[in-house]
Amino acid sequence: MAKDFTTRAEDFSKWYNELVIKADLAQNSDVRGCMIIKPYGYSIWENMQAELDKMFKETGHSNAYFPLLIPKSYLSKEAEHIDGFAKECAVVTHYRLKNNEEGDGVVVDPEAKLEEELIIRPTSETIIWNTYRGWIQSHRDLPILINQWANVMRWEMRTRIFLRTSEFLWQEGHTAHATKDEAVFETRQMLDVYADFAEHYMAVPVIKGIKTENERFPGALDTYCIEALMQDGKALQAGTSHFLGQKFSETFDVKFTDKDGKQKHVWASSWGVSTRLMGALVMSHSDDQGLVVPPKLAPIQVAIIPIYKGEEQLKVISDKLEPVIKALRAKGVRVKFDNRDNQRPGWKFAQYEFQGVPIRLALGNRDLEAGNIEVARRDEKSKETIGFDDVVNHVEQLLEEIQSNLFNKAKTYRDNHITQVDSYDEFKKVINNKGGFVSAHWDGSTETELKIKEETSATIRCIPLENKQEKGACILTGKSSTQRVLFAKAY
Amino acid sequence: MAKDFTTRAEDFSKWYNELVIKADLAQNSDVRGCMIIKPYGYSIWENMQAELDKMFKETGHSNAYFPLLIPKSYLSKEAEHIDGFAKECAVVTHYRLKNNEEGDGVVVDPEAKLEEELIIRPTSETIIWNTYRGWIQSHRDLPILINQWANVMRWEMRTRIFLRTSEFLWQEGHTAHATKDEAVFETRQMLDVYADFAEHYMAVPVIKGIKTENERFPGALDTYCIEALMQDGKALQAGTSHFLGQKFSETFDVKFTDKDGKQKHVWASSWGVSTRLMGALVMSHSDDQGLVVPPKLAPIQVAIIPIYKGEEQLKVISDKLEPVIKALRAKGVRVKFDNRDNQRPGWKFAQYEFQGVPIRLALGNRDLEAGNIEVARRDEKSKETIGFDDVVNHVEQLLEEIQSNLFNKAKTYRDNHITQVDSYDEFKKVINNKGGFVSAHWDGSTETELKIKEETSATIRCIPLENKQEKGACILTGKSSTQRVLFAKAY
Repeated sequence: MAKDFTTRAEDFSKWYNELVIKADLAQNSDVRGCMIIKPYGYSIWENMQAELDKMFKETGHSNAYFPLLIPKSYLSKEAEHIDGFAKECAVVTHYRLKNNEEGDGVVVDPEAKLEEELIIRPTSETIIWNTYRGWIQSHRDLPILINQWANVMRWEMRTRIFLRTSEFLWQEGHTAHATKDEAVFETRQMLDVYADFAEHYMAVPVIKGIKTENERFPGALDTYCIEALMQDGKALQAGTSHFLGQKFSETFDVKFTDKDGKQKHVWASSWGVSTRLMGALVMSHSDDQGLVVPPKLAPIQVAIIPIYKGEEQLKVISDKLEPVIKALRAKGVRVKFDNRDNQRPGWKFAQYEFQGVPIRLALGNRDLEAGNIEVARRDEKSKETIGFDDVVNHVEQLLEEIQSNLFNKAKTYRDNHITQVDSYDEFKKVINNKGGFVSAHWDGSTETELKIKEETSATIRCIPLENKQEKGACILTGKSSTQRVLFAKAY
Repeated sequence: MAKDFTTRAEDFSKWYNELVIKADLAQNSDVRGCMIIKPYGYSIWENMQAELDKMFKETGHSNAYFPLLIPKSYLSKEAEHIDGFAKECAVVTHYRLKNNEEGDGVVVDPEAKLEEELIIRPTSETIIWNTYRGWIQSHRDLPILINQWANVMRWEMRTRIFLRTSEFLWQEGHTAHATKDEAVFETRQMLDVYADFAEHYMAVPVIKGIKTENERFPGALDTYCIEALMQDGKALQAGTSHFLGQKFSETFDVKFTDKDGKQKHVWASSWGVSTRLMGALVMSHSDDQGLVVPPKLAPIQVAIIPIYKGEEQLKVISDKLEPVIKALRAKGVRVKFDNRDNQRPGWKFAQYEFQGVPIRLALGNRDLEAGNIEVARRDEKSKETIGFDDVVNHVEQLLEEIQSNLFNKAKTYRDNHITQVDSYDEFKKVINNKGGFVSAHWDGSTETELKIKEETSATIRCIPLENKQEKGACILTGKSSTQRVLFAKAY
């Protein structure tokens, strides 16, 4: 399975592309920039969705669904929004095909031209705020705490599976509040939810921070983000939560009568994560033997492989394993008992290793006689033989251990790749050689930020929350600065 | 809440439209034919999704995701398919907007014209079978059992919320098999899954049948369906399962090497249900007091309303109710304890009634002293007082009773509205007055079917499975017939 598989050291980018295909996560489609998410990849995404959805509901949110298509005029209402976003998008201009009178196939019917073009949503702020106008009259109608699971489309020029695709799947939260404080609280709360999810489920350590003006979501007053570090030293923005102030409520005229009887504009937040998280997951943990999936998100947590010759031996082994499988499933463990007879055990071992199944159990005749079972863990690629009677407890503990081991390994790597620098030379050296986050002083101007980006390809990933305040000099201009910010090359 | 609410007898269609809006299920958007599914409506859909998804997985299916956009040329590859389907569709012709040089806003950039237009999927057979070609080489790659939860778009001229919208949400199963028998088995199996879901979760009795050639899915060899009857006597097709034969595998050249070493075309099925089920649910059970939702799909199964004056009384009542709420939730019952102090109990009663919450509990001071609690059931609009200590068991049993009561009522109505007729006069009389299904002989020709449709608006809903074979004469032409089929006016 892992034959002809590029290593990370050889070519990280090629390794990633091959891994996504060979592990059956996804593939490119014939439609430019649109991917096909295969069952194995989709089941990891479903596990992510299930956990996030639970977290959203526990924080008081409900799901709803808004139209895929947005009238062109909505997008141009909020000037910054359209400038930042909606230019590269899929435009629906007609609503009918007809048979080609001059040949085969079908052509667009020129008579079925739309009066106003419709855009496939690149994000839904405009259509949702246009709707909220009808839902909100009084402070009693607030807050509105809504999330949508949806597909969106941005016409990307350079695409990469999961990381940057024209169509992708995501969730977008859109909330409306009576006060600024509540909207800010919500924005921060959802950032915490994202960080919690990334660290405890994806086993990916993240830095919570705030974006510079230049990197802000178009239309936001503040964009909060979680930033992760991939194994090649590049950063990846894994989720964002935007404090939108009253911009969209002003643009779409959404007002409410407050307790004091006065008409006020509503305060807003929006927040989202997408199938991009799949890319972050792959690039955080996987290795030269293939995918590594943390137990909490693994579609199969334990693969059990009987090693046998003939029906009779299989029956004896299966009978022995049956109560173990039952007991594990009763504890909520996702078990696959692979007794297919058209593949050899070695082939199965290779497949589960490549697909990142956290634990593999193997039971053959010799183990049976000795009262043992073989346990292999994917994260450390280690094997041990344990007493058969301990297997259920052992597996349960091991799943937890693997989950925290993956997080700890990723965190050690990340922590070792935050480098403080105090000169531009040093900055360039670290960015180009060691990689990772570089913590440096910056004068706070967009001009400086853009110049550094132009010269080094590094961007300011974020100003960490609760950042230490200290006097310093900007690495580029030498102007005074009050705090360090985190730079990195990024996906 | 139910003020200014049209009754079913006055105007069924108006009743439906008002109900969908007033019960907060959904609303129309500014985008022609596209609906907004509001949180309350969406949570019913989520409950449907969860149950169906479980049933799909239990029958061996996995979810996956395919692109939203389909190249125009794919659609014209299967001739019947394009004729039946893809003419009225949303066509993407451009991929960029630009600032309007002659005024405000944005315009479509004429330079960003696509070489080949892309269609927003009306259904995904074409793109999926084009993909399966790459997935299938050997009989070992079969079967492929995939489902997709997705939005689709058909440019409908006359739309109605949930029943016929341009954009709707659905699931579409697409399976590939080595043999005809397996594909037919799959098609029938999924029909059974749909019928099971409709009857046991939606409490909607359905007739399983097969469509006539004229009503078949474009590209299918056989279309199986479940047909339900609404309270106005009109039928509604609630789900379809198609045996596609080898049409799509031939069109998209999907072959496999069988065990005998020969290259063969793959056999196919596809099957789907959509947000149309929401319309079926509403029109099956709801009444002149608003929505009625069967317990198994109700977002809130039990609403508990404390009747109190002042904080102190509320605390006493809340303390008393707390263990009941806990016990119900532990049993998996979806409970809402509504202790809001900005609305009066009467207002809350009206709201939960209108939104179809199956059981309402009310506890006031007098009940407390007497050791009682008031239980109201939505389906029968009845109230009773029971001993407080019995409430948990009582509620649990009552939820089951309501579920089966709704099914039984709908079934009695449906069974009373299947009328056998033996003449065309009688047929027209029943179709126009009594409504419901009419069981009549038909000569089997599309010509006759279309003529009856033209003259009476009734269509053949299905030829029931395991239909009784009996000799008869076609009601229109008098030609000989071997079985009765079911006609009805339909949504």
